[in-house]
Amino acid sequence: MDTVVEALRAALPAAAVATDPETLSRCSHDDAEWAEYGTPAAVVFAGTVEHVVAAVRVAAEHGAPVVPRGAGTGLSGGANATNGCLVLSLERMTAITEVDVAERYAVAEAGVLNDDLRRHVVAHGLWYPPDPASQAISTLGGNVATNAGGICCVKYGVTRDYVIGMTVVLADGSIAKLGRTTAKGVTGYDLTGLFVGSEGTLGIVVDVTVKLRPLAGREERAIVGYFGSLTDAGRAVAAVSAAGIVPSALELIDRTCLHAVAQWQGWELPEQSEALLLAKVDEPGARGDELAAAVARLLRDAGGDRVERASDPDEVDRLFAARRLAYPALERLGPVLTEDVCVPRSAVPEMLARIEAAATAADVVIANIAHAGDGNLHPLIVAPDGDDDAKARAKIAFDRIVDDCRALGGTVTGEHGVGLLKLPGAAEELSPTVLGLHRAIKNALDPAGILNPGKAFPNGD
Amino acid sequence: MDTVVEALRAALPAAAVATDPETLSRCSHDDAEWAEYGTPAAVVFAGTVEHVVAAVRVAAEHGAPVVPRGAGTGLSGGANATNGCLVLSLERMTAITEVDVAERYAVAEAGVLNDDLRRHVVAHGLWYPPDPASQAISTLGGNVATNAGGICCVKYGVTRDYVIGMTVVLADGSIAKLGRTTAKGVTGYDLTGLFVGSEGTLGIVVDVTVKLRPLAGREERAIVGYFGSLTDAGRAVAAVSAAGIVPSALELIDRTCLHAVAQWQGWELPEQSEALLLAKVDEPGARGDELAAAVARLLRDAGGDRVERASDPDEVDRLFAARRLAYPALERLGPVLTEDVCVPRSAVPEMLARIEAAATAADVVIANIAHAGDGNLHPLIVAPDGDDDAKARAKIAFDRIVDDCRALGGTVTGEHGVGLLKLPGAAEELSPTVLGLHRAIKNALDPAGILNPGKAFPNGD
Repeated sequence: MDTVVEALRAALPAAAVATDPETLSRCSHDDAEWAEYGTPAAVVFAGTVEHVVAAVRVAAEHGAPVVPRGAGTGLSGGANATNGCLVLSLERMTAITEVDVAERYAVAEAGVLNDDLRRHVVAHGLWYPPDPASQAISTLGGNVATNAGGICCVKYGVTRDYVIGMTVVLADGSIAKLGRTTAKGVTGYDLTGLFVGSEGTLGIVVDVTVKLRPLAGREERAIVGYFGSLTDAGRAVAAVSAAGIVPSALELIDRTCLHAVAQWQGWELPEQSEALLLAKVDEPGARGDELAAAVARLLRDAGGDRVERASDPDEVDRLFAARRLAYPALERLGPVLTEDVCVPRSAVPEMLARIEAAATAADVVIANIAHAGDGNLHPLIVAPDGDDDAKARAKIAFDRIVDDCRALGGTVTGEHGVGLLKLPGAAEELSPTVLGLHRAIKNALDPAGILNPGKAFPNGD
Repeated sequence: MDTVVEALRAALPAAAVATDPETLSRCSHDDAEWAEYGTPAAVVFAGTVEHVVAAVRVAAEHGAPVVPRGAGTGLSGGANATNGCLVLSLERMTAITEVDVAERYAVAEAGVLNDDLRRHVVAHGLWYPPDPASQAISTLGGNVATNAGGICCVKYGVTRDYVIGMTVVLADGSIAKLGRTTAKGVTGYDLTGLFVGSEGTLGIVVDVTVKLRPLAGREERAIVGYFGSLTDAGRAVAAVSAAGIVPSALELIDRTCLHAVAQWQGWELPEQSEALLLAKVDEPGARGDELAAAVARLLRDAGGDRVERASDPDEVDRLFAARRLAYPALERLGPVLTEDVCVPRSAVPEMLARIEAAATAADVVIANIAHAGDGNLHPLIVAPDGDDDAKARAKIAFDRIVDDCRALGGTVTGEHGVGLLKLPGAAEELSPTVLGLHRAIKNALDPAGILNPGKAFPNGD
């Protein structure tokens, strides 16, 4: 029998199969710094559904693992290669094949960048809300594989809430069209929903049908305020929620993060600021003014200082600049291990305190950005480049934070996915019975276990 | 070996097992007039999760089918019994076990009535949006089994959009807790979503965790108008959508339906009215006024006559009375076979014309109520009581409407579920590959095939 690589070359155009060390290296992992990865036998750059089918068939014949890949911006290792696997890149499948303005949906291939879809539909007066921080560089296929969240999901929901259909290539190379294009529909099981967030372990998503919202009718107003303690900031978050206000963004940035941004950008920080809260409301007209005023009042009542409001888009951007700059500012200090725990909103202050304790105990720097309105925290654990001991300590802090999140009734991954990094956490969170359901479904759809093996849930065998 | 009934009596309290003919008859079918049903061996009225476990274990040991049942208000035959089966009624599991105001979720047992949950959470300033027309009498378990829709889902989504967790009893009697209580979470496959709409074929849902919205911040304004043709009403629907307005209700009632209500209630109908459109917007304050005025203008521009607006709650109720009375008014004329097709919004006028043609061709009376804003139509096919020939003609019209809906790019069930009535339609809509996925998942989770066999998808074996 041919080797996998020979079979791929026979089944696909020459330009679709890469085996050069540089490409193999580039496509061997995603942005999860601490997760393991191996060296693939080949990378297939699929340009069409037929390429995906051909690649999966070759993999099935050879029993080779298939690791699907979008832009590689994942933060849990879900796209990390195993030795000898076939990395199946969807990055060349970038067509937006349909925008139905009356029905408000679009069909886009898996390799379309989130921002490209967003820009494309804006021209039709439509809006695709899911906005992961990686939106400029991450693909819809990756967003769907991880059920990506983002900043506006506190009001508008996550990727799953927008995906109403898809085309998937199954483990035997057959093609399944799932879902619908109508506003509603309940024919058969919700397989579309099952594939969203399944991290390429059940099939390869080649295109998605997403519902869209009207672009009109929103006017963004930002409200920001500094807080002398994380507890005060947490109280402000709880107060906004308790007032029945659903903001379109409610983000928290802690002192460590703010300092990294301020040092980098030459900003001056208010003294004794432990946290910055960034909120948006997007109701138009007088109602928006009223809500922005209410949020500002709640921030002040909770101890917020220098509370500012803005409705001019540039001004809104300026106030949110710290949020956008936080991750790159931290990365200047060393490799960043990104956490993604989600706790009850009311537990945000306690979870932040526990994160601080974890940082002290493990002697590592941890900065926090948080989708506070959702209780979704991203402690960013920083270790200086090349410092293996610091990396080991970072991992200790990571595990402790996962345990603390569970103790507070939280979930180990809010929006990044299980990938590899959260396998131990998922093993804690999911009962043996629920893990049994996962295995049963995985075995039913991929009996040979070739699709992204070892990801998404702890298989235990 | 004991018979199933003997084993049930041994495993459960006496009051939980009924075999009297009256109970067997009452629990042998749901509200789907035309679907087949048999006689169960017993009805188990579970009062606790342990009862459900015991009943499922007995059924598994005896290879007896288990047909779960809520209030029996289903319209597709999903709860119809097979001969010798065990009907498992959840109607006695009526506890609302938790309302978390800060996190905005509630946990309720499967037998809780939709309206009871709604009223319960209102006291906490919270709102459970899914509002099937049966909300006063249908259970959450049934709503989840069918992924029920309703009137406000044009803006607020369907049952699936609110269910974030559940407890299910699996085919072997084991208990699985699925989902989360946090605002976000992506740990493992979205099994919660898979079970929503699976019609009891994968497990018995015993409780659900639903997210809630703040009650505050909504002010309902109704806008109604009469139309001289269904096409004009359809144009008005399309115009509202095209204007980027997302109403909180957009319902259509046709002449036949209006006449039934008018005759019953002694109302006078405007001459030459072929359809009534009922819209609501719920934005508060000036924005609500503005949107209501815009909708009224769009209705008039499309040919709407006697366009009225109301913001007083009693007045809003009065304008929506015809919608609430439509189904009972029709039932006075004879058994009603309820359709549930969903087509693209822009195809609503064409679909209505085809329904009219189907009525003429089959010589039956068809009245229409429609969630027009979603493209979800409910042609109500009426046959005089005891007229078997009319029932047969009704079935011909039913099948033709399903075919027409498919031809227009629609789905055969928008919100009622496949049950038994839509098995032929589902066989048309779902490809052999997709049906294969259904079978693989069903076999993986219920290898002996005891859970509501023959429902939800055409099994083909």
